[in-house]
Amino acid sequence: MSLLDRIDECRRWDRAGYRPFRIADKPLGWVTHGFAQRLADFPNVFRVGEASVDLSSDLTDFASRSAAVAEVLGRFKGEGMIKGWRNEPYPVGLDFYAPPLLQMERAAVPLFGARAYGVHLNGFTGQGRDLKLWVGKRSKSKHTAPGKLDHLVAGGQPLGLSLMDNLAKECAEEAGMSAALARTARPAGFVSYVTEREEGLRNDICFAFDIDLAPDFRPNNIDGEIEEFYLWPIAQVMERLRETDDFKFNVALVNIDFLVRRGYLSPDEPGYVDIVEGLRL
Amino acid sequence: MSLLDRIDECRRWDRAGYRPFRIADKPLGWVTHGFAQRLADFPNVFRVGEASVDLSSDLTDFASRSAAVAEVLGRFKGEGMIKGWRNEPYPVGLDFYAPPLLQMERAAVPLFGARAYGVHLNGFTGQGRDLKLWVGKRSKSKHTAPGKLDHLVAGGQPLGLSLMDNLAKECAEEAGMSAALARTARPAGFVSYVTEREEGLRNDICFAFDIDLAPDFRPNNIDGEIEEFYLWPIAQVMERLRETDDFKFNVALVNIDFLVRRGYLSPDEPGYVDIVEGLRL
Repeated sequence: MSLLDRIDECRRWDRAGYRPFRIADKPLGWVTHGFAQRLADFPNVFRVGEASVDLSSDLTDFASRSAAVAEVLGRFKGEGMIKGWRNEPYPVGLDFYAPPLLQMERAAVPLFGARAYGVHLNGFTGQGRDLKLWVGKRSKSKHTAPGKLDHLVAGGQPLGLSLMDNLAKECAEEAGMSAALARTARPAGFVSYVTEREEGLRNDICFAFDIDLAPDFRPNNIDGEIEEFYLWPIAQVMERLRETDDFKFNVALVNIDFLVRRGYLSPDEPGYVDIVEGLRL
Repeated sequence: MSLLDRIDECRRWDRAGYRPFRIADKPLGWVTHGFAQRLADFPNVFRVGEASVDLSSDLTDFASRSAAVAEVLGRFKGEGMIKGWRNEPYPVGLDFYAPPLLQMERAAVPLFGARAYGVHLNGFTGQGRDLKLWVGKRSKSKHTAPGKLDHLVAGGQPLGLSLMDNLAKECAEEAGMSAALARTARPAGFVSYVTEREEGLRNDICFAFDIDLAPDFRPNNIDGEIEEFYLWPIAQVMERLRETDDFKFNVALVNIDFLVRRGYLSPDEPGYVDIVEGLRL
């Protein structure tokens, strides 16, 4: 086992099993050939071709696209095809900063291989060899990655919030942190990947934030999503990352990015270039 | 002008103007069609085809490949075709950690579009808004990028040294730093690019290191390559990066990576995703 195994978990994808999902001739994601066949039952919404699946060009704006897709997804939900329905609309578009082309239930986004965004907070205290990182253990009742190790705070990026506002909201819900404290977090880039998971094709950008916390800080989970928090020496985090897949797949990637940025990995060690190249698409 | 202009300077490359340069059927770089025609004059060394240029398969080891290529390069040097000859052998290979397949004069590496490696040191004091970054001004007599702004310390990665040993050597030559001080530098990932420059196709990985310096530290250039050093507030560095191309092209990229890693750029600002994606190939 090695850190490269964690990287490889974030690039498991056989493109031959997919065809592009497009809106207005622009590629927005990827659908499996099997799912494409299911979409062919809704010709007013999806034009299913051999080489691609296109959203109907009769759907020309955010509202009509979102409503038409929601109707199809409601049918799939009724058939038990979409698991872990969250009632969280996610934006789907070409560019993070442009108005989205439609919104879609979060649990369905991986079925379309569309890009989604999230915020991940590395919470630590101390520095160098003495740095300790906050680690959360996800509730066993969570639909995705139950019982896996997580960040101090992490969450999906919904419509209508800035990343920093979303981070502050998640900090309150997941760790009981004040807005003033949350806003001392500093952005630190992102990791990105396309990888096959049980829920579909995850095509994500995870924005990383770092927060330097006081030694006496204690998180307090409010929303029940985190069962327990640990404050681990960075060497222990590295060992768990290397030896196990206990961390949720994308949390591991953001953690490795943290190790790279803060000098815990040596570029003189074989594998370093592959690891760093694997952090972003 | 914006940071994206700096990124774009590191991805100026029209692939149609090149064909792959290969050794033992493995792609190692790119040569222009014009340069390929010049190489065709040396059929014992290069097999020039329409779709690729291959090193002769009669050259089967490091010594014979290096000697045969050196002879050709010596001819080109005599004709004035290779400018800025440095007498620095560079390793050329498939993987940074594997034994190189040959060595080649540094000034010729961009003619083959082969990957080269370097070390770049972000030297700073203070933190947050009060951080100041050391900036060097390159000597006007340097062959590449005379008079441009540079790091506190940066240098190419030669054969036979670890990155950290090379960094310590460059720290002594370029800034008069003790080995003990240099070795407090911490690795922080890398940037990478393929871009057309006057000297040819630069296909580089620049390993970034950060060093947190005392407020009274003063660099002292020994080798004459840096004319003057400045200690600039981070806001001034950002303004120069945004508004001018005063920084050497790859120094700008490593500086932008520093701004991203340390939270000086906001992911809520349009362009951020493009900028971060442009930091590595």
